[in-house]
Amino acid sequence: MLERRQIQRVVLMALDEDAPFGDITSQTLVPADATAHAQLVAREPGVFAGSDVYVIAMSTIDPTVSIDMHVVDGAAFETGTVLADVSGPARAVLQAERVALNLVQRMCGIATLTAAYVAAVGDHPVRVVDTRKTTPGLRALERHAVRCGGGHNHRYSLSDAVMAKDNHLAVVGDITTALRRAALDLPHTTHIEVEVDRLEQIDAVLKSEAADTIMLDNFSLEDLRAGVKQIGGRAMVEASGGITLETIGDVAATGVDVISVGALTHSVRALDLGLDITMQSAG
Amino acid sequence: MLERRQIQRVVLMALDEDAPFGDITSQTLVPADATAHAQLVAREPGVFAGSDVYVIAMSTIDPTVSIDMHVVDGAAFETGTVLADVSGPARAVLQAERVALNLVQRMCGIATLTAAYVAAVGDHPVRVVDTRKTTPGLRALERHAVRCGGGHNHRYSLSDAVMAKDNHLAVVGDITTALRRAALDLPHTTHIEVEVDRLEQIDAVLKSEAADTIMLDNFSLEDLRAGVKQIGGRAMVEASGGITLETIGDVAATGVDVISVGALTHSVRALDLGLDITMQSAG
Amino acid sequence: MLERRQIQRVVLMALDEDAPFGDITSQTLVPADATAHAQLVAREPGVFAGSDVYVIAMSTIDPTVSIDMHVVDGAAFETGTVLADVSGPARAVLQAERVALNLVQRMCGIATLTAAYVAAVGDHPVRVVDTRKTTPGLRALERHAVRCGGGHNHRYSLSDAVMAKDNHLAVVGDITTALRRAALDLPHTTHIEVEVDRLEQIDAVLKSEAADTIMLDNFSLEDLRAGVKQIGGRAMVEASGGITLETIGDVAATGVDVISVGALTHSVRALDLGLDITMQSAG
Amino acid sequence: MLERRQIQRVVLMALDEDAPFGDITSQTLVPADATAHAQLVAREPGVFAGSDVYVIAMSTIDPTVSIDMHVVDGAAFETGTVLADVSGPARAVLQAERVALNLVQRMCGIATLTAAYVAAVGDHPVRVVDTRKTTPGLRALERHAVRCGGGHNHRYSLSDAVMAKDNHLAVVGDITTALRRAALDLPHTTHIEVEVDRLEQIDAVLKSEAADTIMLDNFSLEDLRAGVKQIGGRAMVEASGGITLETIGDVAATGVDVISVGALTHSVRALDLGLDITMQSAG
Amino acid sequence: MLERRQIQRVVLMALDEDAPFGDITSQTLVPADATAHAQLVAREPGVFAGSDVYVIAMSTIDPTVSIDMHVVDGAAFETGTVLADVSGPARAVLQAERVALNLVQRMCGIATLTAAYVAAVGDHPVRVVDTRKTTPGLRALERHAVRCGGGHNHRYSLSDAVMAKDNHLAVVGDITTALRRAALDLPHTTHIEVEVDRLEQIDAVLKSEAADTIMLDNFSLEDLRAGVKQIGGRAMVEASGGITLETIGDVAATGVDVISVGALTHSVRALDLGLDITMQSAG
Amino acid sequence: MLERRQIQRVVLMALDEDAPFGDITSQTLVPADATAHAQLVAREPGVFAGSDVYVIAMSTIDPTVSIDMHVVDGAAFETGTVLADVSGPARAVLQAERVALNLVQRMCGIATLTAAYVAAVGDHPVRVVDTRKTTPGLRALERHAVRCGGGHNHRYSLSDAVMAKDNHLAVVGDITTALRRAALDLPHTTHIEVEVDRLEQIDAVLKSEAADTIMLDNFSLEDLRAGVKQIGGRAMVEASGGITLETIGDVAATGVDVISVGALTHSVRALDLGLDITMQSAG
Repeated sequence: MLERRQIQRVVLMALDEDAPFGDITSQTLVPADATAHAQLVAREPGVFAGSDVYVIAMSTIDPTVSIDMHVVDGAAFETGTVLADVSGPARAVLQAERVALNLVQRMCGIATLTAAYVAAVGDHPVRVVDTRKTTPGLRALERHAVRCGGGHNHRYSLSDAVMAKDNHLAVVGDITTALRRAALDLPHTTHIEVEVDRLEQIDAVLKSEAADTIMLDNFSLEDLRAGVKQIGGRAMVEASGGITLETIGDVAATGVDVISVGALTHSVRALDLGLDITMQSAG
Repeated sequence: MLERRQIQRVVLMALDEDAPFGDITSQTLVPADATAHAQLVAREPGVFAGSDVYVIAMSTIDPTVSIDMHVVDGAAFETGTVLADVSGPARAVLQAERVALNLVQRMCGIATLTAAYVAAVGDHPVRVVDTRKTTPGLRALERHAVRCGGGHNHRYSLSDAVMAKDNHLAVVGDITTALRRAALDLPHTTHIEVEVDRLEQIDAVLKSEAADTIMLDNFSLEDLRAGVKQIGGRAMVEASGGITLETIGDVAATGVDVISVGALTHSVRALDLGLDITMQSAG
Repeated sequence: MLERRQIQRVVLMALDEDAPFGDITSQTLVPADATAHAQLVAREPGVFAGSDVYVIAMSTIDPTVSIDMHVVDGAAFETGTVLADVSGPARAVLQAERVALNLVQRMCGIATLTAAYVAAVGDHPVRVVDTRKTTPGLRALERHAVRCGGGHNHRYSLSDAVMAKDNHLAVVGDITTALRRAALDLPHTTHIEVEVDRLEQIDAVLKSEAADTIMLDNFSLEDLRAGVKQIGGRAMVEASGGITLETIGDVAATGVDVISVGALTHSVRALDLGLDITMQSAG
Repeated sequence: MLERRQIQRVVLMALDEDAPFGDITSQTLVPADATAHAQLVAREPGVFAGSDVYVIAMSTIDPTVSIDMHVVDGAAFETGTVLADVSGPARAVLQAERVALNLVQRMCGIATLTAAYVAAVGDHPVRVVDTRKTTPGLRALERHAVRCGGGHNHRYSLSDAVMAKDNHLAVVGDITTALRRAALDLPHTTHIEVEVDRLEQIDAVLKSEAADTIMLDNFSLEDLRAGVKQIGGRAMVEASGGITLETIGDVAATGVDVISVGALTHSVRALDLGLDITMQSAG
Repeated sequence: MLERRQIQRVVLMALDEDAPFGDITSQTLVPADATAHAQLVAREPGVFAGSDVYVIAMSTIDPTVSIDMHVVDGAAFETGTVLADVSGPARAVLQAERVALNLVQRMCGIATLTAAYVAAVGDHPVRVVDTRKTTPGLRALERHAVRCGGGHNHRYSLSDAVMAKDNHLAVVGDITTALRRAALDLPHTTHIEVEVDRLEQIDAVLKSEAADTIMLDNFSLEDLRAGVKQIGGRAMVEASGGITLETIGDVAATGVDVISVGALTHSVRALDLGLDITMQSAG
Repeated sequence: MLERRQIQRVVLMALDEDAPFGDITSQTLVPADATAHAQLVAREPGVFAGSDVYVIAMSTIDPTVSIDMHVVDGAAFETGTVLADVSGPARAVLQAERVALNLVQRMCGIATLTAAYVAAVGDHPVRVVDTRKTTPGLRALERHAVRCGGGHNHRYSLSDAVMAKDNHLAVVGDITTALRRAALDLPHTTHIEVEVDRLEQIDAVLKSEAADTIMLDNFSLEDLRAGVKQIGGRAMVEASGGITLETIGDVAATGVDVISVGALTHSVRALDLGLDITMQSAG
């Protein structure tokens, strides 16, 4: 669900940021006709995400750079795995190296972390989903990485689904009425999710028959179980709030349908990948 | 060193990404004339970075939103500190909330981590500097955050200083000659830094009299000390490669001038900040 | 649901298109200090849409142009109604006049036509909705106009809801399985609508339990009634295909929930509005 | 007179608007390797316009989509005519289908309507021309469509010719003097057209010897004849104002040189074209 | 005829080019609260052009910078004249100084040179006009400067008037026919200018009755006189080709209507203006 | 050091400026299938700069235009030299001709002028460098042209090196302290240059040990010699201010390291190049 034009825009922006007036090192020290052969190597194990991103990032400066990916998005790899072979004009390879790594290391970091959360859920029929806590400008890439790790996506943005929170509901008067009216106004294709902080809020939401999903925010395990029971299938149930690798298994066992984890994207450790380069002068 | 226009572009890009066709929740559930009062509160201690960013992010959708910052960039704060007061049209405040937090939590995370590295260096006269391992699109903001944490910046990009690495030097023939020729070609204002992997490479670099800084990459503490001695003030010395909070003190003690730490920006944990909102209907 | 920035971009694009290198008539014939007073007048009855658009279009060239709107979006007006008073520097008013009219006449045309369709539905509990057959570049404005006319919006784009058509389903093998798998892959917030051409296709769709809406495309009134009965509340029902002002009442009576009408936007007659201007030289 | 870059920009803007974050239906339901064969078919007779637009719209997402046009711009076609064959990756074809139709149906609608106006003029040596009442953002395409229908273009914009109207002349004092002064100031290549509302205004305009064209706005047939006679070849004569298919023949017979018709573009009925698709899975 | 938005775009582009990541000198050495008072002073005599450009260039970084212009576009000034007073935050003034000077020195250079050409023409009723030999990106500004110097503009671009040259006519077969056909195809508002290299070419052009202006390219004075006589008022006459300050008087005396001079813009000497700054620390 | 994307952006901007809505002359008079063969010819001797720019400018409208360059950047040529052969669709060649010449004539003018300055320096080991007095939007191209002429570049922008001038230093209190503090704040890769107006200012600058280069602004030859002696190798020395072809030799003899010449770019005479075209109709 990552479009080529979307990737190209991110890559161009990143290349411009990284070389507003050229790569003066390559241009000064590397002969124009030198070629480079390089291997993208994993320095730690993980789950791959971003093969299209890597190819576009390495070949935008000079389309004669060729990239041969040896891994597909979503595949696990070990330390030392050669993920891709790259060859082409040395100046272009050296100039693109860091931007390409910056993007893909982050994506692999997200995919790898997501895979750990998904594994921790075990066999429970629960979705692990991302949030809007993504890096500004990189949301499409980061959401793709979550999917590569076996996770699911939540809504893309403020525009494509409703998420009614306390703050929204604080001024609407009767919640049941407000949700019904919203459902009547919005496109029939709009999913409405409502966040509640306490079990007592659930009934007013259910009564509206307008909520497709109810998010139980920062609930104890006990309250989650009670919430699932109270909702009784009349809406999907999402658990949210400070869920970690240690706690997600127990949360999943409460019977919720969806668990959202901000940490999937808001605090990413870049996975350690490196580009091993062999240079060759054309002369 | 963060320009207003630079911040505005990042903020606009982030707002567009987060609401390609409007915030349907606010528009449906929140009356157009409702107002919000809000407080940006620290949920954990840290060092602040991004006050201009926060102000611009909160007021771009609707310039009548007013933000009163209670903290300056570079200041430390405790859990529970009210960092800013925000008030204005509720729809605009709610729509901007997440984008503003995404940016500032990341910046505070970087400043806080940098401050820890700087503290670990102690009294050694050493600069802790960032690298080009920044988030694509956010480099200016992340570099600013490093400074807020007491760190220094390295070169901004491929365009404003030379960093000659193994790969660049692999095809140049005689390194001494190549560096001299580069120094003759480049603007007289260009700083030339050369990376070496082994002590034996230092002499050829020094002989060129063209290197302003020599980076000792992945050197042991012993080799760092030997390198500093060998260079003997004829160039600045930078240590680089896998340096952590645990090791940076020892590295600083070797007598190097600069220590670069990719982790300052490549694996940022967003600092936990929240926006506590009180809504009020205008009716 | 029309954001200020969205309107500003459309207006800027339109002004640039209409004057790539200035309005040479005003600049040559109208003194720089002449002022204009003007009235936006309805030359035929209709329903208004686009007051924000009109204000922004008239004041972008020169922010000292003031616009006093006398009508709100969604209000009906008669021939001769003064919809707005405008006053300001004559050059700016004259330059903006046509662009502002081009945008608002189209929006009022859509609102007025939509209102006719909605009226034709009468008391049936049915939504009249738009389609993706909008003018490229003006979708947000045209969808807003549909709402001003009392209609509802369908999905905004290819990104925010699924609409599975014959062509999509032609290659998936078993439709029931394919829809189930899609529902498992997509965000839990994604609404899935499936288009069917014949009554016989409905069961496979229902069996998947993944379709939130079933669209009955080009069905006879009899088949619509049969379809509504067969679906029996297990999904929303949308009627689509060549529905006109003459037929929409009967379609609404079949019990469908949603009727989509491409004609709302694909073949708009601009409503006849005019700007009556009184000029005054400053001298 | 439609440049490739111009078309590409319109197409990109339309594709972005229609899929801000991807076509989730195709990506979920259609295998990546499925191919589509499709035919663009006329569902009613008309005059074609926009072959370059159609090709670019269908092939921008994926350049491997191939389009074989069977009709040239300006050619008439019947119901059922196959206007083009399209084949390529199914996802790309399905994603582009609606944007391409939205653009070309509009262009064909304009060409077809223009052809009707031109036919109604018969053998009179008169130009049927468009106005600035075009769709914001699509002016170049719509003007091209007018030419495809046998019409002519008026000035492109406010920048490339003068059109002095009542409002412009209201503050200039003596019209004769003002027009002379304008002619002296403007580039010698600038065409000056002056709009008059009454026969009595013509003499002052002629006296300036600066008007290349005089527009007779909302004149009766009798007054048009009188105006043509009074002008006597000293300027071109344009008739304007509410001219319809029914009246244009009589207007043409009055001897005017140019007839401008806002309806050519301001109230376009999209011509009914459809894309019949045959899908094939690659497996 | 210089629009505010046009100027703003040029200024923004220039500021971005000149400080892709901030003005590190001001930010490091100048206190944030220091103010500057400055005077724009003429270091040589000339004709002014670009007051709006100067104001926008100086105030874009920080809108609190105030500029008080003491000269209007088109006015002559002497060495030492204070053209403007500027005051505001010192960092913003220092950052904008060079960009503002780069733009305005060039414009004043053009206006001053144009004034010399116009003076050399004396009382002959001839227009001195520019060409398309302008600096890419600055055409609107440079054309404005030509007008400030008392010159006139030629067509703005390839889009707003026809200029048929040898190369265009080489493949058209019969020139008379080709020009007639072009006149029939083009908008009736399009001015047609035809370039001829020899007297013998004039008749074919005149015979078409389609040429509004005939350009006599690189004609001797004698041939210019012959050409003017031969054309006899049936078209305007433009002289072109290597005309200098020394020769323009004689050319003007031949009776041509227009003299185009590429040198007005293609080889501009920036006029010597300087900004004298007085700094003041706020402390 | 001129990147392909950089050139493409300048070229696109220039083509758009020169034909906002197409080349109406070529489109009307030149058959779509006519081809052109052309030669870029030197009408005066010079030094070439801009071969990549020329190729991109000629082939952007239509990539089937082929350009065969016969000269490399930095090479000298004589009057009459054929610098390039061009062939392709006639419309595209004619439309691009002027934009391509506007860019390359300017670049060759700069290279040729720079070469004269460099020659005038003779054997003195001195760099002739450009300044920030470049044409807004064309800095990268103009700096490249300076290098083609044998000159060197100064800093690119306000962002990549410090240049402390009187105005900056006026408010800092003690200059020595201020420069030291700046050096401590800035990246270790930042070159600090300080401008002085009088010999007496040098000591305070040297004392800071923070200045990498000292610029002696508008010094007499005698003072330049004294300055070089006083600085004694503790910083590079740049001479600046009104240096001409006549005086540069004497300035170079004073022992300075760098001479900056604003005239290299601020007052460029476009070199006389022409495109000789042979047209051929395809029929």
